[in-house]
Amino acid sequence: MSTPSLLILPGDGIGPEVMAEVVRIIDWYGDKRGLKFDVTTDLVGGAAYDVHGVPLADETMAKAQEVDAVLLGAVGGPKYDVLDFSVKPERGLLRLRKEMDLFANLRPAQCFDALADFSSLKKDVVAGLDIMIVRELTSGIYFGEPRGIITEGNERVGINTQRYTESEIRRVAIAAFELAMKRNKKLTSMEKANVMESGILWRDVVNEVAADYPEVEVGHMYADNGAMQLVRAPKQFDVIVTDNLFGDILSDCAAMLTGSLGMLPSASLGAPMENGRPKAMYEPVHGSAPDIAGQGKANPIACILSFAMALRYSFNEGEEATRLEKAIEKVLADGVRTGDLLAGEGVTPVSTSGMGDAILAAL
Amino acid sequence: MSTPSLLILPGDGIGPEVMAEVVRIIDWYGDKRGLKFDVTTDLVGGAAYDVHGVPLADETMAKAQEVDAVLLGAVGGPKYDVLDFSVKPERGLLRLRKEMDLFANLRPAQCFDALADFSSLKKDVVAGLDIMIVRELTSGIYFGEPRGIITEGNERVGINTQRYTESEIRRVAIAAFELAMKRNKKLTSMEKANVMESGILWRDVVNEVAADYPEVEVGHMYADNGAMQLVRAPKQFDVIVTDNLFGDILSDCAAMLTGSLGMLPSASLGAPMENGRPKAMYEPVHGSAPDIAGQGKANPIACILSFAMALRYSFNEGEEATRLEKAIEKVLADGVRTGDLLAGEGVTPVSTSGMGDAILAAL
Ligand SMILES: CC(C)[C@H](C(=O)O)[C@@H](O)C(=O)O
Ligand SMILES: CC(C)[C@H](C(=O)O)[C@@H](O)C(=O)O
Repeated sequence: MSTPSLLILPGDGIGPEVMAEVVRIIDWYGDKRGLKFDVTTDLVGGAAYDVHGVPLADETMAKAQEVDAVLLGAVGGPKYDVLDFSVKPERGLLRLRKEMDLFANLRPAQCFDALADFSSLKKDVVAGLDIMIVRELTSGIYFGEPRGIITEGNERVGINTQRYTESEIRRVAIAAFELAMKRNKKLTSMEKANVMESGILWRDVVNEVAADYPEVEVGHMYADNGAMQLVRAPKQFDVIVTDNLFGDILSDCAAMLTGSLGMLPSASLGAPMENGRPKAMYEPVHGSAPDIAGQGKANPIACILSFAMALRYSFNEGEEATRLEKAIEKVLADGVRTGDLLAGEGVTPVSTSGMGDAILAAL
Repeated sequence: MSTPSLLILPGDGIGPEVMAEVVRIIDWYGDKRGLKFDVTTDLVGGAAYDVHGVPLADETMAKAQEVDAVLLGAVGGPKYDVLDFSVKPERGLLRLRKEMDLFANLRPAQCFDALADFSSLKKDVVAGLDIMIVRELTSGIYFGEPRGIITEGNERVGINTQRYTESEIRRVAIAAFELAMKRNKKLTSMEKANVMESGILWRDVVNEVAADYPEVEVGHMYADNGAMQLVRAPKQFDVIVTDNLFGDILSDCAAMLTGSLGMLPSASLGAPMENGRPKAMYEPVHGSAPDIAGQGKANPIACILSFAMALRYSFNEGEEATRLEKAIEKVLADGVRTGDLLAGEGVTPVSTSGMGDAILAAL
């Protein structure tokens, strides 16, 4: 195979500085492990708007379609809050998800032993937590039509449409069942089938797919109960599959249980390309954190772990991914910490690039 | 004024047994405090379906429209899972909310000192927690049209519509600001204005209403961040206002933070009737808990506190409401506990009616 290609979109806020550390890791893999990547860098979000007047230029979109994987930092910032909806930084991200058809968003919520104390939850409730949330990412109320703000009589009406086809539900359900098979063979699907017909269809299709995975124990939960159960006893879950909007909220809720948002990566996967690799974009779960941007305070680990997910899911380099994850665990066990995780004894505070140094040293 | 009227709808599962304790409290108020109520009892949910073939008979709906307040227990149970969507127990509840036009659902998330240990969160994160979530209850994706499961080509498509008019947002925002004025003058509105146009309209209208309440400090948060912040540091909030679907999930998440779901009441309020009282329904936040139904194990406190909310919001008997709340606090401080809250030293286990006895004794 030719050298695999990566498109790097650092984006806004802390995006560029955390991505800079990822680039150092990528270079290390090229130099030391013979894993070379063909890297292109481009703009997304507010950074793209500043240059092109849109949060994702057509040429950037075209590149994203061609590469083997996209790595994205973060988008958004107060400077762009005044922009019209259609050109807000988020639209760049949503366009990538939609046009690359990245329907399966994998969001691990993992509690790192060394960091369990950072959770607002009791240690025994979260220590060892390891959940995988599979969120549908290309449909539902994020993209459904009709949408907009219309005028009726003399008042405005805000409209959005939740819309799911059988095949949209089926493909993300299959992705979730496949993951469940590789993990603990336990899957919980969440919707509001007691209130929404789209939830009824969701539940039906998940049950249909379940027939092909007799080994997987399948449960269904209403999304409100799901939120409660995540807070009450998160370790009851292994893989969770849910729609775009519920997934947005529930995966953030699950992420916060771990107490270390700066640690959590995500993968967004689509259908296989001609070379067999899935269309893919990798990004940290945290946002652009404009309040600390440009100060060398940001934790680059979530973004680096997103690259580890790329190694695993796009490049079939599971062992190299594990190597990187283990290096990060070691650094954390050694007490090396960015500003988001400073409390505790025997802790060595480092900057964003100091964390990169430590991880490279551990590699 | 003539004797105020109450319609009691115990519903399914543990509904009847917790409501039985409320009836004893109501009787106590009639006997001892001269607060007499004209009480009618009727069916809702599965219990109504069993008799009428629908989860709320038209005559019951008509009664609900006439009384000063409705007290509801809980609806639903596995026996009814097979029913068609249109006659599921939940539809009875949703019909009451919609036809009585109960647009403001007040869900306090309060952590009782005596019970802070039951939370899965660290004690210092939740001790003293006292949030009021105001959830819009009559619109949004719960009721928007078009909805249903249609066939397109050869596949099914599930559709629901989020739809909010300006006036629907305005009236619930006003309710939330009024509450904020009586509390700590701090209000956080939650939506997904970065993704949904209905969220943009929501934010705009909340800002318009804010102009009439210059003393209230107003914040806006995306609902996913809201879920994270609730888990991370819930005491940063005082009053939260949000739409029907986000409110469903976020209020359950907030409720679970307190660790004692069996303790949390809710009030659903509409416009003032001719006698000045608002249309109103009161219900515990917990569900019908079919697994423990009929065994005398259920905690009646959430349902009793719902009656306390009725005293306060429907009958202007704030002092009597406080009397009841104080009696419950005393009973808890004395270590009297139903099965959901048994752990700990110096605890006296009681049945559902034993809890009723203890509260009556404390009154
Ligand atoms: C930035 C925003 C559009 C996005 C979303 O709502 O999906 C974010 O919250 C996420 O979860 O990736
Ligand atoms: C029972 C169900 C229809 C209801 C809802 O979704 O509103 C419940 O979850 C609630 O929050 O009162």
